[in-house]
Amino acid sequence: MAGNSFGQLFRITTFGESHGEAIGVIIDGCPSQLTVDLDYIQGELDKRKPGQSKITTQRKESDTVKILSGVFEGKTTGTPIAMLIPNEDQRSKDYTHNVDVFRPSHADYTYQTKYGIRDHRGGGRSSARETAARVAAGALAKLLLKSQGIEIVAHVSSVGKIDAPNVEIKDVQEFINDREKNIVRCADPATAEEMIEYIDSIRKQGDTVGGKVTCYVKNCPVGLGEPVFDKLHAELGKAMLSINAVHGFEFGSGFAGSEMRGSEHNDIFVKNNVGDIATITNFSGGIQGGISNGMPIEFRVAFKPVATIMQAQATIDSEGNAAEISGKGRHDPCVVPRAVPIVEAMAALVLADHYLRNKNSKLI
Amino acid sequence: MAGNSFGQLFRITTFGESHGEAIGVIIDGCPSQLTVDLDYIQGELDKRKPGQSKITTQRKESDTVKILSGVFEGKTTGTPIAMLIPNEDQRSKDYTHNVDVFRPSHADYTYQTKYGIRDHRGGGRSSARETAARVAAGALAKLLLKSQGIEIVAHVSSVGKIDAPNVEIKDVQEFINDREKNIVRCADPATAEEMIEYIDSIRKQGDTVGGKVTCYVKNCPVGLGEPVFDKLHAELGKAMLSINAVHGFEFGSGFAGSEMRGSEHNDIFVKNNVGDIATITNFSGGIQGGISNGMPIEFRVAFKPVATIMQAQATIDSEGNAAEISGKGRHDPCVVPRAVPIVEAMAALVLADHYLRNKNSKLI
Amino acid sequence: MAGNSFGQLFRITTFGESHGEAIGVIIDGCPSQLTVDLDYIQGELDKRKPGQSKITTQRKESDTVKILSGVFEGKTTGTPIAMLIPNEDQRSKDYTHNVDVFRPSHADYTYQTKYGIRDHRGGGRSSARETAARVAAGALAKLLLKSQGIEIVAHVSSVGKIDAPNVEIKDVQEFINDREKNIVRCADPATAEEMIEYIDSIRKQGDTVGGKVTCYVKNCPVGLGEPVFDKLHAELGKAMLSINAVHGFEFGSGFAGSEMRGSEHNDIFVKNNVGDIATITNFSGGIQGGISNGMPIEFRVAFKPVATIMQAQATIDSEGNAAEISGKGRHDPCVVPRAVPIVEAMAALVLADHYLRNKNSKLI
Amino acid sequence: MAGNSFGQLFRITTFGESHGEAIGVIIDGCPSQLTVDLDYIQGELDKRKPGQSKITTQRKESDTVKILSGVFEGKTTGTPIAMLIPNEDQRSKDYTHNVDVFRPSHADYTYQTKYGIRDHRGGGRSSARETAARVAAGALAKLLLKSQGIEIVAHVSSVGKIDAPNVEIKDVQEFINDREKNIVRCADPATAEEMIEYIDSIRKQGDTVGGKVTCYVKNCPVGLGEPVFDKLHAELGKAMLSINAVHGFEFGSGFAGSEMRGSEHNDIFVKNNVGDIATITNFSGGIQGGISNGMPIEFRVAFKPVATIMQAQATIDSEGNAAEISGKGRHDPCVVPRAVPIVEAMAALVLADHYLRNKNSKLI
Repeated sequence: MAGNSFGQLFRITTFGESHGEAIGVIIDGCPSQLTVDLDYIQGELDKRKPGQSKITTQRKESDTVKILSGVFEGKTTGTPIAMLIPNEDQRSKDYTHNVDVFRPSHADYTYQTKYGIRDHRGGGRSSARETAARVAAGALAKLLLKSQGIEIVAHVSSVGKIDAPNVEIKDVQEFINDREKNIVRCADPATAEEMIEYIDSIRKQGDTVGGKVTCYVKNCPVGLGEPVFDKLHAELGKAMLSINAVHGFEFGSGFAGSEMRGSEHNDIFVKNNVGDIATITNFSGGIQGGISNGMPIEFRVAFKPVATIMQAQATIDSEGNAAEISGKGRHDPCVVPRAVPIVEAMAALVLADHYLRNKNSKLI
Repeated sequence: MAGNSFGQLFRITTFGESHGEAIGVIIDGCPSQLTVDLDYIQGELDKRKPGQSKITTQRKESDTVKILSGVFEGKTTGTPIAMLIPNEDQRSKDYTHNVDVFRPSHADYTYQTKYGIRDHRGGGRSSARETAARVAAGALAKLLLKSQGIEIVAHVSSVGKIDAPNVEIKDVQEFINDREKNIVRCADPATAEEMIEYIDSIRKQGDTVGGKVTCYVKNCPVGLGEPVFDKLHAELGKAMLSINAVHGFEFGSGFAGSEMRGSEHNDIFVKNNVGDIATITNFSGGIQGGISNGMPIEFRVAFKPVATIMQAQATIDSEGNAAEISGKGRHDPCVVPRAVPIVEAMAALVLADHYLRNKNSKLI
Repeated sequence: MAGNSFGQLFRITTFGESHGEAIGVIIDGCPSQLTVDLDYIQGELDKRKPGQSKITTQRKESDTVKILSGVFEGKTTGTPIAMLIPNEDQRSKDYTHNVDVFRPSHADYTYQTKYGIRDHRGGGRSSARETAARVAAGALAKLLLKSQGIEIVAHVSSVGKIDAPNVEIKDVQEFINDREKNIVRCADPATAEEMIEYIDSIRKQGDTVGGKVTCYVKNCPVGLGEPVFDKLHAELGKAMLSINAVHGFEFGSGFAGSEMRGSEHNDIFVKNNVGDIATITNFSGGIQGGISNGMPIEFRVAFKPVATIMQAQATIDSEGNAAEISGKGRHDPCVVPRAVPIVEAMAALVLADHYLRNKNSKLI
Repeated sequence: MAGNSFGQLFRITTFGESHGEAIGVIIDGCPSQLTVDLDYIQGELDKRKPGQSKITTQRKESDTVKILSGVFEGKTTGTPIAMLIPNEDQRSKDYTHNVDVFRPSHADYTYQTKYGIRDHRGGGRSSARETAARVAAGALAKLLLKSQGIEIVAHVSSVGKIDAPNVEIKDVQEFINDREKNIVRCADPATAEEMIEYIDSIRKQGDTVGGKVTCYVKNCPVGLGEPVFDKLHAELGKAMLSINAVHGFEFGSGFAGSEMRGSEHNDIFVKNNVGDIATITNFSGGIQGGISNGMPIEFRVAFKPVATIMQAQATIDSEGNAAEISGKGRHDPCVVPRAVPIVEAMAALVLADHYLRNKNSKLI
């Protein structure tokens, strides 16, 4: 109940602090006979890793993942899959100046109060470094989903006040290819340029900025999601809100939907041109009554600006005395480009879990 | 894993369909020796019940709750508390015309496909009637929280495009009293009038409209919430997104925070005038690193417009043939006023659960 | 985590005290489209109910079960199934003399200390009355298993020192028929007579006696049970040990197996006459490495004598002063005949749960 | 739900196969501020490790444990504690002859059928090697319990038909010291000699033999255990039955209790000489109604003989053809001496979990 596990049937448990020896994850419940493409998993981690471009942190870590168990001769065996990612380039001396002060909008104060102790080296467990373990596990979940034809793709849809125009989810594969063509991971090339320039200017000011990630799931079969508390969008929401710096989640019509009328919001059912049931509009975001309806799933995730800035800030120390904190270390001016693979990973974990859970809906 | 339970240590399981004999809930994990005020619980249900005013559904149900177990001589005993709410005024004949068609933006199609069978009388399990059981359980959670000084209060902060001005959370008690003075449950009297008028006009058109609920938690101690996956706001998010018609959740700065810079978003720590640690601003919404920081918790929930409208709509039947559906039955033109006690109930369930979970953070 | 739920995918939660208004159970996770034979469920309850014969308690309760939800037109819908059994003939005045003393070998002292409060009317939640809810849920699990050809049958294999000779599991159906021919539910008629006579003599002395129940599962497919912690026999063991008065559990060779050598204990694999893989002996009790191997599952459950005796006993009161307690009320001289349907019900719950869990072992 | 986790609040998840790179465990839910004595943890592992004496397997593995996370400056931080034990001396070539045959009374056949694939090198995940991870986690649980004064001690109470006389639980500390004086871990020195001689003779015949372990818990406070399904003895039973080769579990009077009368079995309450409530006899084994009553907890665990023998045995291959298997590799003639620390570890995990769970019984 200490909250380091996620999922019910495809269940992961992560461990590790930013400046400990290693971080990692155990996946319990992955069915046997799934082919494990380690290069694919490493590739997903590479999308998240620090030091990719001028608009991400300059910290360099190779984030090399190693599978310790659960895979035999290239296939899953049905036993728990442990993945380990050693920590490198830790430079914990960068953080010694923070031992005794609470960094604004970080978790220092809450951890210290909750536990009476904290690993003060760079955030410890509260660091977004933990999400590397999620990406590794999520990559396996993606492989499971791919084997069933389900695809997940996200992109950066806003940085600060710069919004990308609505991107069509016509061809997920093409979309992914386009996305990786720019370092900010926005599927619209013109907007991407604008975003990159803006982030670079923010970086030079020693400041940070927030943004949004939009995620799509294509080819999701009808029936995923459990009604009442474990609605598919409720589980996606929890998954996204558990990512560091996320302050909001919406799916389908989202917050804008609250301004609409029923007569314009209702998605009318039709038979589409291949004889499948579909809806004309998709304000439901692919989910009705908490259950996927076969339309593309679409949701958006809002990230606040990273709390670590390269500017002096007032704060207090652990005695409650006024103190000042100056920004050191190496951090991201804007987290959203590196958040894209994390959003996809968490979505994959939710969908893989509900794919398995749905196997028992009917008695066959 | 079928998703009808919520919470870990203060854990509820609900049951019942809108047109079955009864709905109800079992609460497992409520500590012993809590005084149970049945009138308070019934009062919470009365705030949610149909037929309260001209802007809610005209369906009349008394929603009388009965406690079957777990309470002895007015106090909880530590054993499971079962609450039963019989269904009245079921009029399932109102729904016979819907047996074979899929209502737009309802759960008919997804339930039918997932389970191969559905209780077609008024939504069955997908009906918001299920939330009465949540409100009953949430009322008990509120009593537990009250015994620790923690208070929860929500109000309607928007209806369609009508936004209430920011309400200060100065005095939760006064706020609640104000709120119940108007039938739309908006804490700002002038806006309330405007909302009521608007909903009434929508109702006359046989249409529906969405809106938002804003919720505050006062006097929450530091330390509630488990880092990583079970962050307090992630659990609140899941709770809210599991409520019928919810399409979005945000806390603290929310979606707007994604447009801000770190230097303006960071909440600076200070010692407040009674010597407690506080922050000057509260963009963190009372939660940092997934753990409550002692500041008021604040979040917003977006509701789409109710799908049942009193207008004819195109749809398909279970064979996929084009069909028409005409609105019958008695439904809410705007769900948000009745959603206020549901939002509070779900928030209370999350907080009660994490209040108990936090007992084991430190070895004492 | 308060321990009133059992199972993961076929999950039950029971509620209710012996002298409250009702007891009941919610089953969450039963797949849709299972035909629900209410007469069968009631029949199982009738086997457990008090007042069946001279060797069971003379308390009369009809134990009539009512289904409140989750079943529509005779079939499960995939939503939670709530079952309610009202309490009758409560006579709580019989128990007023026990308010302030701790009955020997009952749960009075431990409940009072753990919770600081207890429902002292006849045991409250610790009463074996709670098992009626298990039998109702177990009957549904049996229906699920029957639909897959899996059968469960138990009988009384010992009362005090009277052991039944080893019963062959040749034909489960015949075995069940034989069993119900005698009131002690021992499949061997001659031993049954002896047992009945002995229990009757014990009853006349105002004393009680223990005994054992042996249970078989026939036609269990290979593959049920999850290795490591949720081994099939570990789950069966927990299920049985959770039944009131159970002090021991063994499967296959059991305790006697600890005296054997590997060379005599190993079950040699062969192809049987229908071409299936089988073992010559079955010391493994149908379970190897925690997973069913297709052979009949066999286990034994030891019940201590019922603690309530019709004799005066020394004890202490809640202040710790010496006191005397005299046996009143109406109780069983030997619990094992009525325990037979409870053992079967718990076995069915374990198997139904693992039947569902096994669906996700392989990727298909 | 794949069964590689144990416990609710003090929750472990193990991973790793016998011939993979490493095995390990994550402990989630250990409260912060527990002092971690790594030497103590290593010491517990040393009691379980292979190659300790002539009566255990001659396989040599150092079983060196490394803590990867969750401990900072010698204390737990409240974050997950990952422990890794690399596999050494794997010699998987010893097992190549078994690739295609099903070893009698092993898990080869059931794993192969359940998963359609198995790691055939020495048992893979079904190997008792997995229990090293349990011992490491159990050692931490023991440290938690020790900090509360609770002590656990087990010894070998029988080997084959050689029973140790009843050992008094007078002084747990002395008892432990005595126990480690002999290689068979029986607290009675004379019986120990007899057991050692017997096991040695069995070993020379290439055979194996079963035995029993008896375990005591001293200074357990009143109140641990959750009534109904998670009774303390039901959880202990599941824990023990999940250990490789265990075929039976009993507590207190156990199977012998089924032959007794209520009038002799009831434990009479008294105030003991220090004013505490106690019982004269302890047939309840320290647990009443599933909750600890403050008396010593006592239970017994029956182990079947190890399946791997150094003799030729008939079996079938994966095609169902008759085959012969000859014993190779290095195995234990009698597993019970090495099972002692495993039994203690699993008991510690159950008690630590229920120690934390009991924190929320009462509202304080």
